[in-house]
Amino acid sequence: MYARKALVVLSGGQDSTTCLFWAKKHFQQVSALSFRYGQQHESEVQIAHDICAEANVPFFSLNVPLIGTLGSNSLTDKSIPMDAEKPADGLPNTFVPGRNLFFLSIAAVFARERGIFDIVTGVGQTDFSGYPDCRDTFIHSLNVTLNLAMDETFRIHTPLMWKDKAETWALADELGVFNLVRYRTLTCYRGIVGDGCGECPACKLRREGLEKYLRNRQANPSK
Amino acid sequence: MYARKALVVLSGGQDSTTCLFWAKKHFQQVSALSFRYGQQHESEVQIAHDICAEANVPFFSLNVPLIGTLGSNSLTDKSIPMDAEKPADGLPNTFVPGRNLFFLSIAAVFARERGIFDIVTGVGQTDFSGYPDCRDTFIHSLNVTLNLAMDETFRIHTPLMWKDKAETWALADELGVFNLVRYRTLTCYRGIVGDGCGECPACKLRREGLEKYLRNRQANPSK
Repeated sequence: MYARKALVVLSGGQDSTTCLFWAKKHFQQVSALSFRYGQQHESEVQIAHDICAEANVPFFSLNVPLIGTLGSNSLTDKSIPMDAEKPADGLPNTFVPGRNLFFLSIAAVFARERGIFDIVTGVGQTDFSGYPDCRDTFIHSLNVTLNLAMDETFRIHTPLMWKDKAETWALADELGVFNLVRYRTLTCYRGIVGDGCGECPACKLRREGLEKYLRNRQANPSK
Repeated sequence: MYARKALVVLSGGQDSTTCLFWAKKHFQQVSALSFRYGQQHESEVQIAHDICAEANVPFFSLNVPLIGTLGSNSLTDKSIPMDAEKPADGLPNTFVPGRNLFFLSIAAVFARERGIFDIVTGVGQTDFSGYPDCRDTFIHSLNVTLNLAMDETFRIHTPLMWKDKAETWALADELGVFNLVRYRTLTCYRGIVGDGCGECPACKLRREGLEKYLRNRQANPSK
């Protein structure tokens, strides 16, 4: 365990919630930060809050409506129908331009004010849906940029960077929070907690990972 | 001249206003973006607007109050007395943590929506008062980070990066806007337009540069 404090960027979804418990295992003090940015299901902020209350983690939330309105996308603009798949010629319209750039930059300034320089995020590039700001190179570049912007030594931790969804379920299980992540988090684009609608791209990815993990667990019960 | 469009991050001060006219010379189409972030003299946004109206440049402004409140600083928090000099042991308290990081990141997303990938900023590291986010390495790192965040090719232009204040006055003169920059821009921390209060750190730097430039011009009138 690091004798340090960490701030987790928490959305209340499967990935960031798993990271919250990963951070609790690896850092002495953990706090969490959520954002209201005009996402269609702001209930995810309440979900993040409730999970933190249960996990005994100080929880903060910030309003950044600009993130949702700056770049056109179907996550914050209900008039745009969501892409079910990544289009061949570009990014899915669920991409909110600059979202992780803003989330992590704000988190860094917020953390620095509190003497925290370890920031944990659930982004990963295995199932990254074509979002460029989930890639490892982006995170490394941003880490350097944040250090240069404030003349500090931030460390961005991405425990899920190279895990697929099945491995993320395995991590939650290992951390003892499989049921909490399964039934209490919100990943679904339609705003349905737990297993969700089962049909939207986020639910599909989550469900396929879950089924794969459960098959593996049944086949290797000793693991 | 580049056959491209550029977006200038404009504060209404000497540096960014000089950059506005530099951009008009080098790009086919120029627009400008200002921020309201809780700065004590929001009149600078009106000044930026008026300069753009006169220069026939489309002007935009965005509200980002979070930037002013996220990190403690004396530019947005009137209860903190401003450092007149850079303290030996750290950054002056006029440093707004993450300011240029946020300004340029927001500008990039804003520009991308409009098909603009050239961004012009007045930051420079010659008279940088110890602000880490004015340095050349920060700007280069941020440029890469923005490209990776959105899978685009942004170009951040910093025409003043290696100029001191006297050289910045020379550039304004060369661009035919010496008087406009001298009498219409707002650099003063006390909010006084033009030559300002003459006493605050920003005025002192500006005045010393102006006097040096005027001495040079008198000594070399042919230049």
